[in-house]
Amino acid sequence: MNNKEELLKTYKEWIFRMSAYNMALAIIGIDQQTVAPKAGAEYRDARTAYLAGELFSVNTDPAMVEILKQLLKEDIDDDTRRAVELYLEDAEKTLCIPKDVYVSYQELCSTSYSKWLEAKTKDDYAVFAPYLKKMIEMKKQLYGYRNSDKSIYDQMLDDYEPGMNIEKYDAFFDALRERIVPLLKKVQAAEPIEDSFLYEDYDIEEQKKFMAELLQYLRFDPEWGYQNETEHPFTSWTCENDCRTTTKYLKDNVVSAIFSTIHEVGHAYYEHDIDPKYDGMILSEGISSGMHESQSRLCENYLGRTKAFWEYNYPILQKHFPKQLGNVSLDAFVKAINVAKASLVRTEADELTYPLHIMVRYEIEKGLFNGTISTEGLDKTWADYYEKYLGIRPENARDGILQDVHWSDGSFGYFPTYALGSAMAAQFMAAMRKDMDVDKALSENRYTDCIGWLKEHIHKYGFRYGAEDIMKIATGKEFDVNYYLDYLEDKYSKLYNL
Amino acid sequence: MNNKEELLKTYKEWIFRMSAYNMALAIIGIDQQTVAPKAGAEYRDARTAYLAGELFSVNTDPAMVEILKQLLKEDIDDDTRRAVELYLEDAEKTLCIPKDVYVSYQELCSTSYSKWLEAKTKDDYAVFAPYLKKMIEMKKQLYGYRNSDKSIYDQMLDDYEPGMNIEKYDAFFDALRERIVPLLKKVQAAEPIEDSFLYEDYDIEEQKKFMAELLQYLRFDPEWGYQNETEHPFTSWTCENDCRTTTKYLKDNVVSAIFSTIHEVGHAYYEHDIDPKYDGMILSEGISSGMHESQSRLCENYLGRTKAFWEYNYPILQKHFPKQLGNVSLDAFVKAINVAKASLVRTEADELTYPLHIMVRYEIEKGLFNGTISTEGLDKTWADYYEKYLGIRPENARDGILQDVHWSDGSFGYFPTYALGSAMAAQFMAAMRKDMDVDKALSENRYTDCIGWLKEHIHKYGFRYGAEDIMKIATGKEFDVNYYLDYLEDKYSKLYNL
Repeated sequence: MNNKEELLKTYKEWIFRMSAYNMALAIIGIDQQTVAPKAGAEYRDARTAYLAGELFSVNTDPAMVEILKQLLKEDIDDDTRRAVELYLEDAEKTLCIPKDVYVSYQELCSTSYSKWLEAKTKDDYAVFAPYLKKMIEMKKQLYGYRNSDKSIYDQMLDDYEPGMNIEKYDAFFDALRERIVPLLKKVQAAEPIEDSFLYEDYDIEEQKKFMAELLQYLRFDPEWGYQNETEHPFTSWTCENDCRTTTKYLKDNVVSAIFSTIHEVGHAYYEHDIDPKYDGMILSEGISSGMHESQSRLCENYLGRTKAFWEYNYPILQKHFPKQLGNVSLDAFVKAINVAKASLVRTEADELTYPLHIMVRYEIEKGLFNGTISTEGLDKTWADYYEKYLGIRPENARDGILQDVHWSDGSFGYFPTYALGSAMAAQFMAAMRKDMDVDKALSENRYTDCIGWLKEHIHKYGFRYGAEDIMKIATGKEFDVNYYLDYLEDKYSKLYNL
Repeated sequence: MNNKEELLKTYKEWIFRMSAYNMALAIIGIDQQTVAPKAGAEYRDARTAYLAGELFSVNTDPAMVEILKQLLKEDIDDDTRRAVELYLEDAEKTLCIPKDVYVSYQELCSTSYSKWLEAKTKDDYAVFAPYLKKMIEMKKQLYGYRNSDKSIYDQMLDDYEPGMNIEKYDAFFDALRERIVPLLKKVQAAEPIEDSFLYEDYDIEEQKKFMAELLQYLRFDPEWGYQNETEHPFTSWTCENDCRTTTKYLKDNVVSAIFSTIHEVGHAYYEHDIDPKYDGMILSEGISSGMHESQSRLCENYLGRTKAFWEYNYPILQKHFPKQLGNVSLDAFVKAINVAKASLVRTEADELTYPLHIMVRYEIEKGLFNGTISTEGLDKTWADYYEKYLGIRPENARDGILQDVHWSDGSFGYFPTYALGSAMAAQFMAAMRKDMDVDKALSENRYTDCIGWLKEHIHKYGFRYGAEDIMKIATGKEFDVNYYLDYLEDKYSKLYNL
């Protein structure tokens, strides 16, 4: 095949085929996590793995790898060139894996997820432990095929955040530790902020009614978005114009579902706002996990926890819960949702202690892959790390090692991107505040003005540029962790009158 | 390939592949009908059609057709022989269709469904009409490839109910008409039964709470079953141990969701109770649409509308709606849910007028395929038929031609099986009542004793035997429409003191 047009035609058909399998697997995944009856899991998992194998075959088709290489020699437009390069990189990473091993891995992912859920429900780490062990072995096997000089964990970190590795993350976390630990100590020595009213009895049906109004404020449009409930909130960008998010309601916590919703809808906007000319291809994705988390955490924390955000929304929340919040002022509420306090569950953590939760996971992941930490007794190891980093110890596995879904589906190396994303968000936010009156927009029910800024400076590019380029495009500067640390110091000093 | 074991291995792998695509399409279908955001429909539909095309390729793989033929020459067990024969029959029916035509058809099915939903929401037949027209043309094209001597509608009728055709259905409906029309006239001349209390204001959240209790009575176990809400209730047997049903709540009708639930759960039990040794293969399906409807309508009407059923469930319903039903006696309630009255919507119709709704659809389908009826102005034709058969005229398309989903996905020839199934159910019911005290079981919260009888005599066989054989196995006799007509005459004569 020599003709450029023919090559492009074959290339586009190939992309379409991949998008079909990706869509099917995304919908099957959503179904599994939201409504699928448990007893059917074994049957479904085996077939889901088969379909993932089919996708794998399409993905790594050696004939297509040749076509991609030929295409790069042709005079193609820059967008296509970038996409072809990314596809080739992906294909070469996976080409080396035998298909049957890949299918077994997919099967293990499904089973391991079910076992994690069962373990969490039963609060019994022993149910999940053998699958976690298998998952780590399998990951080592999969990465082994790549024959890279880099360590396996370095490769994983790079997969989620291109360019990152243990050395850079160590430096990043050291910088965080240096300023966050003393800051947290000062906060802990200061007068505590009253927040017990957030944790009273909050009827879930009533929370859902408020959520319907909040989703309107966020302009999360049912035409292209849908919210469901799951044990662990997530966002799935099934396809063009189709973003699913989930949340989880807690009876004794009025803000948990709210912030998880703002967070997930932040992810959804990122995918939704990518330039439609990239639809269906690799460019129509967020750049990296860190960039994705920067968008979701920007929405959750830098917008969602401001006074301006609640100037509009708090009276509505009060209307739904007059008994619990009727006598709580806006200022008291905003202070309460920003309290910094060591806690056990990452997704409920405040901005200041959040990076410490990530450090625990980062250290454990490093240990699991360099052999210094074992899955045996990992619930205890986990508790030890919490004691060391946060000064508290989980009393059960549910609020300890089983709290997160990520290890069940083999997403090692993902956690650090949460902290990185939070830090990137600070820098984006500083740039946004230079360009527009964020607080005015939030208090005047124009949330999407802020989303519009993100779209214009970040979202629309999709995967067209790398994370470092986007940082420069959007903020004019390279990534600088001090935006984040300055923000935290400023915010918590004021909040606690330090 | 000559070795029997090798043939069987290839055959089993082929079945597995088909089951994977079937599962994916089932889950995508459920997703589409329950939660998928509308704006993503075009993207999803194109990819769903591609996957259906992949399944089609697997289904009609000429090499597999040869292997099936070879297998039939081998010494294989009877179950496998039956399955191979059925697969071969299916493959030969579709082998003749060009793949691209098949994919276009699948695409049309998805689009047409979306357009039907839009038309129904807007109450505007014009939105749906062009797609209905295309669907009929496409169906003619698809059946044209088969080169059968039979008329297209005859072939469609046979596809849903093997052995049936226009001649037999004409005779069946004539027999119904002969005894039902005079019976209905007598009922209409009798003293009307009070049932207005069923149509008061019934809070939907409260209906859902009752439903949770009803699902427990029905033993619809969340381990293997799940209920959702859709515009048009349906059941999807995704896979082994995984049955999804849906229902629809109406604010001004307390029984609509209840009977649709009992109906759909009846379908679900049929699929769930098939002998697990047939799992994943063609034998693990209900025999025919008529047989399926016989099971769902048996549950809905022959069990669900009895006094015995409500002896247990009515006090619970009253507890949820004391204002509306507190002063309505059990007898008055049971009478009300059995009232016979001409109405516009098939799914809400009583047992006596139900077959008339089917006749309208049957006559229109015949006309659409023999060219005597056009899709243009079909909303008016529909209304004319209702006036002729039921003496009432729909005032809008929503309660008229747009009420049913079936034509939107090309299911022409399906409707008659509802009437046939209702008639078969009467004969099964007579046999069940000979074997066990049905009323005692229902009133004592032992609904699954009745389901157990159905499982033992019908469900467990799956597709192992044909519908006519099952009728003989379960009742000892050939199908006889008089069981149904005797039942209706007896029931309505007593109810209306005729």
